[in-house]
Amino acid sequence: MDAVSIREVAPRDGLQNEKPIPADDKVRLIDALSRTGVRRIEAVSFVHPKAIPQMADADEVWTRAWHNPDVRYSALIPNTRGAQRALAAGFREIEVVVSASDTHNRRNLNRSTDESLDDIAALIPLVHEAGATLEVIIATSFGCPFEGDIDPARVASMVERVRSDGADRTAFGDTTGMATPRRVKDLLSQVRPELLHFHNTRGTGLANVLTALEFGVREFDASAGGIGGCPYAPGASGNIATEELVHMLEDLGIATGIDLEALIGVAEMAEKMLGRTLPSGVLRAGPRTRLV
Amino acid sequence: MDAVSIREVAPRDGLQNEKPIPADDKVRLIDALSRTGVRRIEAVSFVHPKAIPQMADADEVWTRAWHNPDVRYSALIPNTRGAQRALAAGFREIEVVVSASDTHNRRNLNRSTDESLDDIAALIPLVHEAGATLEVIIATSFGCPFEGDIDPARVASMVERVRSDGADRTAFGDTTGMATPRRVKDLLSQVRPELLHFHNTRGTGLANVLTALEFGVREFDASAGGIGGCPYAPGASGNIATEELVHMLEDLGIATGIDLEALIGVAEMAEKMLGRTLPSGVLRAGPRTRLV
Repeated sequence: MDAVSIREVAPRDGLQNEKPIPADDKVRLIDALSRTGVRRIEAVSFVHPKAIPQMADADEVWTRAWHNPDVRYSALIPNTRGAQRALAAGFREIEVVVSASDTHNRRNLNRSTDESLDDIAALIPLVHEAGATLEVIIATSFGCPFEGDIDPARVASMVERVRSDGADRTAFGDTTGMATPRRVKDLLSQVRPELLHFHNTRGTGLANVLTALEFGVREFDASAGGIGGCPYAPGASGNIATEELVHMLEDLGIATGIDLEALIGVAEMAEKMLGRTLPSGVLRAGPRTRLV
Repeated sequence: MDAVSIREVAPRDGLQNEKPIPADDKVRLIDALSRTGVRRIEAVSFVHPKAIPQMADADEVWTRAWHNPDVRYSALIPNTRGAQRALAAGFREIEVVVSASDTHNRRNLNRSTDESLDDIAALIPLVHEAGATLEVIIATSFGCPFEGDIDPARVASMVERVRSDGADRTAFGDTTGMATPRRVKDLLSQVRPELLHFHNTRGTGLANVLTALEFGVREFDASAGGIGGCPYAPGASGNIATEELVHMLEDLGIATGIDLEALIGVAEMAEKMLGRTLPSGVLRAGPRTRLV
């Protein structure tokens, strides 16, 4: 094991779960992240502005942001309309979400999981015709706040379905932080996605990553400063902080390509933009190599 | 692997790193913890009140606290005077600290590591004569904020020395949160203590525990609510939160004997006593089994 690929999701997943900030700040955040050595950034989502006001200015932000040729930028979309906007904006990596939990999917998308899978199947040719790829993110893969545990076999059958429908990649989302080392083992011993998106809601974020590494997963989402709270628990942390992930991996001798001090600088900047203390230990205390 | 023994250190290690609180609250905290099913509590330290004002009322607190016959209570002491006080108070489990880092030991105890080891050697007969046991906690085992990395061979030779001097137990302290899965592997592959005391300063607390379990360690310190900040980084978290540790272990099928909901109740009480938001995800979000 010599390298891990991190996708930085602060500009989209992170900011979507924070109070809205101006487009100027979003552009500054994306541009600063593009200079840290990170090679993948989830930049924006193309969603209805009434549903997600935080992303209402996605077109403007993306037009103004630096498109570093060494970075792959992706956009999240909820439906065909969103996919058309993302493709028109020039994105060639598109993400779409479907929940393993039927209840969660109905609350989020107002339809059953199977109906969403049908929608995704119809979306794939559209994305491919534009020369882009589609990643299917399976939310609540490690548990649902309404239904509880999710049968790994259900997630496995969803992976099988979307792959046979032509999806290019799959990711498992730990939507409300219910993943633990045990649940990671249970699921990954049955089916492996290309990428994992863990939360640190209950303190197990990096322990989950450590477990997933043993199963051969080499791609992880993380958010600078841990931006993006947990909608179900005010004050709780959501996404894994990218600097905590980089800190642990580089110490293990696993290359991420990311300049940790530069990344900490971005997290400090983001903390000022958001006006709240971000839940990142490495942001607070610095890396273990920073001596007194 | 079917059980892990957790020592709850909030009343001593935790409170020692917080603003002083009244003796009444300390007694309430110990008594509440004694009802959670935890089987070991680090209750107080017998130190000079000018050095550690938070523990100035140790005798009073310990006299008034419930001594649950099913719980083993321990006290930390810095020297012979402290040991005499602890033994006179009835403690039969005594802890003493020495740093693997000479610089850290001089700053903390005003003497070299070797001088402290000599002091400990002289202390052991005194403790044993009273029918008590002595645990030697080797601080900065995973790194020193002044010296940086600590050679595992140095920690191993300290363990050898104190064991040959008659110490009953050893513990490794992650004093300023410099332990990572890599450093845990590096050290435990050379020498294993009876107990590990990790911090969560840089987000790796539970990942460190997971790594240590693979090396056969089955005893861990933790602090309800994560009480006890990090003196080197204001706002940073220090001790692993006991409820986060119990939550991960029980989910893995490893018994701790602790009632998680009762423990969360104690952490909520402690949060009110201390008047600050404690750094515990499971305290904020509840266990993963607590559904909407």
